[in-house]
Amino acid sequence: MAKITSVSPLAPESFPTLPVIPGVRFAAVEAGVRYQGRKDVMLALLDPGSVMVGVFTRSATRSANVLDCQAKIGLDSDAGAAIVVNSGNSNAFTGKAGEGSVAAICEAVAKITGLPAERVFTSSTGVIGERLPHDRIIAKLEDLNAQLDDKALDMAAKAIMTTDTFAKGATASVDIEGQRVHIAGIAKGSGMIAPDMATMLVYIFTDAKIGRADLQAMVSRINDKTFNCITVDSDTSTSDTLLMGATGTSGVDVTGEATFEAALHEVMQNLSHQVVKDGEGATKFVTVNVTGAASDADARTHALAIANSPLVKTAIAGEDPNWGRIVMAIGKSGAAADRDLLSIRFGDVQVAEHGWVAETYKEADGAALMKKPEIDITVDIGLGDGKATIWTCDLTHGYISINADYRS
Amino acid sequence: MAKITSVSPLAPESFPTLPVIPGVRFAAVEAGVRYQGRKDVMLALLDPGSVMVGVFTRSATRSANVLDCQAKIGLDSDAGAAIVVNSGNSNAFTGKAGEGSVAAICEAVAKITGLPAERVFTSSTGVIGERLPHDRIIAKLEDLNAQLDDKALDMAAKAIMTTDTFAKGATASVDIEGQRVHIAGIAKGSGMIAPDMATMLVYIFTDAKIGRADLQAMVSRINDKTFNCITVDSDTSTSDTLLMGATGTSGVDVTGEATFEAALHEVMQNLSHQVVKDGEGATKFVTVNVTGAASDADARTHALAIANSPLVKTAIAGEDPNWGRIVMAIGKSGAAADRDLLSIRFGDVQVAEHGWVAETYKEADGAALMKKPEIDITVDIGLGDGKATIWTCDLTHGYISINADYRS
Repeated sequence: MAKITSVSPLAPESFPTLPVIPGVRFAAVEAGVRYQGRKDVMLALLDPGSVMVGVFTRSATRSANVLDCQAKIGLDSDAGAAIVVNSGNSNAFTGKAGEGSVAAICEAVAKITGLPAERVFTSSTGVIGERLPHDRIIAKLEDLNAQLDDKALDMAAKAIMTTDTFAKGATASVDIEGQRVHIAGIAKGSGMIAPDMATMLVYIFTDAKIGRADLQAMVSRINDKTFNCITVDSDTSTSDTLLMGATGTSGVDVTGEATFEAALHEVMQNLSHQVVKDGEGATKFVTVNVTGAASDADARTHALAIANSPLVKTAIAGEDPNWGRIVMAIGKSGAAADRDLLSIRFGDVQVAEHGWVAETYKEADGAALMKKPEIDITVDIGLGDGKATIWTCDLTHGYISINADYRS
Repeated sequence: MAKITSVSPLAPESFPTLPVIPGVRFAAVEAGVRYQGRKDVMLALLDPGSVMVGVFTRSATRSANVLDCQAKIGLDSDAGAAIVVNSGNSNAFTGKAGEGSVAAICEAVAKITGLPAERVFTSSTGVIGERLPHDRIIAKLEDLNAQLDDKALDMAAKAIMTTDTFAKGATASVDIEGQRVHIAGIAKGSGMIAPDMATMLVYIFTDAKIGRADLQAMVSRINDKTFNCITVDSDTSTSDTLLMGATGTSGVDVTGEATFEAALHEVMQNLSHQVVKDGEGATKFVTVNVTGAASDADARTHALAIANSPLVKTAIAGEDPNWGRIVMAIGKSGAAADRDLLSIRFGDVQVAEHGWVAETYKEADGAALMKKPEIDITVDIGLGDGKATIWTCDLTHGYISINADYRS
């Protein structure tokens, strides 16, 4: 069972007030899948006419739920959709039994809601390799269906938590030709967080009207700049799933609307940053900017090498402006670099340039910056125009405590 | 300054008795480069006729010393050679000043020993980015030269330590046509350890007779199976250097001798394992075997993904037989894998097969194995003949304590 001893020091002050998205309702119950005394299963039901899209982990050992979602997500359908999520058990590496569990849940949901089974999407998160007690979930479906409420998205955000120390929600709205559309999303994730297509569990809803292919392309595009740009521990989950449903109930067509894409980007970036801020044991939120690389891909390789380096992450935990470890990470990344062209800044402080510490750099300035809860590291490679930004957290005793004891 | 609170629980019972290698002498002194009250500079002097070979880090930000060694190592010369090593300062990312420090040391050693400067090899290990106070080293060269002793290799092993908790030595001897040749080596390394060509500082000596090109090929071959197969924290040093000197004083030609190569392999493997056993904070020595991969390269990718996963390493620290995290690591590695063909063993215990936990597996058996100080993890991918072995350690509070406080 998760050891949730205290809330991350980087948590937002409060959970946001999420707007009602007409056309989608939520419920959450205690099913006792693994955790006791807390809600651990959520149901979201989207009305007929809703559009569903998603992005998923590329792990070669992804869960039965992910494989099932991937098989269904590309279908065009006006029938509506359901999303069922449990915490406490990931149903990953559970062989044919895992596929059976997914099928059993989908069929039971279909029977109760009247949806076709191919419009039921499931996610499971928690321990890997233990058989999912899907009967416990199925036994609660009638209750879930009876409690559906368009104001219960916040309750769903709590039900999907595992090692998370706070529930994660974000919202945005945008006016298009005088009409308002809303976006509301929730996410869970704290450890086993590294970018590879999608990451963790994320559910986003909007009342905008947009075609499936257009929305899928938009979500994939934004995903590459948000969830695919975060890392807590370089480990990639077998369950990573982002599902988005557009009910169309606002009647506002957002196809090709840059303001809508910007608002969705804001929601997805906000949720992805909350996941990093709830990184297991995290005490610092770190933005790693790399510019001047030979290509964007090289910039990403450098930024990930810095963000995933245990030595960089422990230095940040220790509030040590140890820029030598950043040099080390760039050196090992495999992407092109020239020692004498590197430039490193912490916040606005120039730390290193011309292959050595900057003449103007004072250790006290670097040390002062490292005491802040949010730290920007900027590296200019000096070779070209490639750039990338990766968000990460520090590596602390808290991470060791959580993961040497908790089976996830 | 390094916080060396106690010796690694995985340390050998004692430092081995190293044989004298005729033709090479050693000395170590206190120069106060960074550490106080301990020897921190060593000198090794090889007689004329000795052959020198080496392998070095591929880091793009490697130190001035490494660049200088690489420029010199390919030369054929009968003049003899010197090796000067300091701990406490790595002379990496010190710009043109770093190159100047190396040149100053080499010229001073050449003057005192009568060697040409191109036969003086230097290594520096310790903090990155601070100017090497090479005058402190040069001031001690007369003392070092005066104290040279063919029995002082153990003292040299101590002088090169940084966060190491024990000095590392290994030896082997082999009889070839009734004549005995000896190999003796020392190493340092504890953190910033990940395989990329060479790693850390390693110095090996033999009285065997062999040509430079033959010895270089042999060392590179063995290096790929020893030092290039270990990882403590996935971070690659800017200073990794392995130098080997063959004095030829035994008169025994070992060219093409498989027994000699096997003996050298034994010494290099032994030293590489000692580095892992002194991994920062390590309490477990872990052997990760991957078999049945699509290729040897794929097997290595899988094995490194397992060995470098913070979640696998923390589970081992917690003595938790959490094979689900091994499945996760294989899934994220990017190399080919099929969930249903995977087989995982801890020691002799079959843990998982056919895409799920093995029918015969008992959690108690796995838990008992995880309590041992040395743990074997074997994964068969079930796709081909590719295989690889990687050695690593666990990730503990000790690693965080050392690296959140110590500037390296």
